[in-house]
Amino acid sequence: MNVKKIAVIGAGSWGTALAVTLSRKGHLVRIWDVNSQHLEQLKADRENVKYLPGIAFDSNLQPVDTVKAAMADADMVVFSAPAQHFRSALDSALPYISQDMIVVNVAKGIEQKTLKRMSEIARDKMVNMKYVTLSGPSHAEEVGLGIPTTVVVASADIKLAEHVQDVFMTDKFRVYTNSDVIGVELGGALKNIIALGAGISDGMGYGDNAKAAMMTRGIAEITRLGVKLGADAHTFAGLTGIGDLVVTCTSMHSRNRRCGIMIGEGMNPKEATEKVGMVVEGMYTTEAAYQLAKREGVEMPITEGIYAVINNQINARDAVNNLMTRDKKSEIY
Amino acid sequence: MNVKKIAVIGAGSWGTALAVTLSRKGHLVRIWDVNSQHLEQLKADRENVKYLPGIAFDSNLQPVDTVKAAMADADMVVFSAPAQHFRSALDSALPYISQDMIVVNVAKGIEQKTLKRMSEIARDKMVNMKYVTLSGPSHAEEVGLGIPTTVVVASADIKLAEHVQDVFMTDKFRVYTNSDVIGVELGGALKNIIALGAGISDGMGYGDNAKAAMMTRGIAEITRLGVKLGADAHTFAGLTGIGDLVVTCTSMHSRNRRCGIMIGEGMNPKEATEKVGMVVEGMYTTEAAYQLAKREGVEMPITEGIYAVINNQINARDAVNNLMTRDKKSEIY
Repeated sequence: MNVKKIAVIGAGSWGTALAVTLSRKGHLVRIWDVNSQHLEQLKADRENVKYLPGIAFDSNLQPVDTVKAAMADADMVVFSAPAQHFRSALDSALPYISQDMIVVNVAKGIEQKTLKRMSEIARDKMVNMKYVTLSGPSHAEEVGLGIPTTVVVASADIKLAEHVQDVFMTDKFRVYTNSDVIGVELGGALKNIIALGAGISDGMGYGDNAKAAMMTRGIAEITRLGVKLGADAHTFAGLTGIGDLVVTCTSMHSRNRRCGIMIGEGMNPKEATEKVGMVVEGMYTTEAAYQLAKREGVEMPITEGIYAVINNQINARDAVNNLMTRDKKSEIY
Repeated sequence: MNVKKIAVIGAGSWGTALAVTLSRKGHLVRIWDVNSQHLEQLKADRENVKYLPGIAFDSNLQPVDTVKAAMADADMVVFSAPAQHFRSALDSALPYISQDMIVVNVAKGIEQKTLKRMSEIARDKMVNMKYVTLSGPSHAEEVGLGIPTTVVVASADIKLAEHVQDVFMTDKFRVYTNSDVIGVELGGALKNIIALGAGISDGMGYGDNAKAAMMTRGIAEITRLGVKLGADAHTFAGLTGIGDLVVTCTSMHSRNRRCGIMIGEGMNPKEATEKVGMVVEGMYTTEAAYQLAKREGVEMPITEGIYAVINNQINARDAVNNLMTRDKKSEIY
């Protein structure tokens, strides 16, 4: 195997799970996090007790104190900061990114203040960056435990995607390539809206039929918006679209779904968000998608309904009733 | 509302839930079942205690003793027999089906001995039959309770589909139309293979990532076969494809999934099927899809893996390992 030097920026659950996966394969991995206390804990315990407990670090996985130390001489850097923090994480690492260093980003979201995708932020900073998106249905805990998982790496440069596929792929971590960066990014981001909606449906005491309908019609409207923005419709039927949606909507790991459940049970959306205690990415994404849909003239009734609910314009039961009693439709249009 | 006289042939959970839905809307519904003891119970209790307990019949829902009595003067007949028994159910009703009577079939499957879809069986019997398929993500129990549900009615004659949409649609039961009969029929049938596979994965102790991958890559190979057989790829991304798959793969209601779990835990497939005690449609469908894929030259690695497992040619762990270590792929091809 061709051993690589890899920097991981962000030691949350997913960044840590990827660092563990890469180091198990034999790569030399250095991980850094903006929180220095958290880094001290990683070094002391050689385990991410807070976000990925129970998974011991191999000797070739090293927590380091600075971005510079993580990036020194690296062949590849993996960004695993939350979407709204990707810009600042990239800024701190940018001085160390050379023309031939490969940048892999695993953040899923749309920057709220600019409505930009993650790759657009990266391109603004450095035109010829060797940039690859990694996304898919992947609870970090399962990847840490070595339970079979599949993901997609996307780049317009398919040779670059294939190279990253080689670096990551193991018999427990299967990697597909896709050249549709826009579709892969939008699928991973927009699915959080539907996770919020699935939670609301569950919280209202609705069943599997309603949730399956929301997921299916939800991915249909996400696809409509995505195609308008330049994505390939097939991508949304894949691992980073419906696959990621399935994992998110059926899991209690999802903060978006948990927040939705509380709203469905009648809690005020603001209070529900505060109670989750961490970033509920779907709240930002719903706002962004609502604006994008308006700008692009795309019909997104589920997103509009969820937007109205989380902005206290309508209660959840009336929103569902509106969806169920819309004009009769053909399924495909 | 335009009140219709509707016969329902088959009083299992789904036939009963549809009869209840139609009668609640004001239609005059007569229901018949091949099992006369079961019919007696329906008449005595005015409730399907065995398959849909807790849902009282309205006065305009009548269990009747003969097919002829159910069909007399009916505008529409709904067949809700299991797929392998649709042919005989149709035979018994055929003398009473007029040229202008609408036939709705809700059976999901492929006839094992002929590899025919349900609409092909119907067309063989009567060339100009006004035939419509109804399918989608719909646990009968939830429909009985009036919890929001969406389904699709499919016919090449879209006016006919729209008429059936009008007859069934309520504010709790939203009906979409689709002209792709082949896609709707194949989605409903072939999803049971993946439900079996999802169960096997769960039974082996694998997680949500693996199951989401199986569902996503499963619908991809079902789509490949479907398109080869004349279906529209979009249909498999809809309610009768991924929507129905989601409901089936995440529910303990599914006999296919329960059977898969026991196989994944190490039980002999024959023993697991016997233990379920009822028809495990996915076992037949896997056989049929395996034969169809061979005949049509379509690559279906997941179906082939499940086929090998349920025929004791390979153990489940080796089958998963084969899937995870196949040649590196692009996601869309």
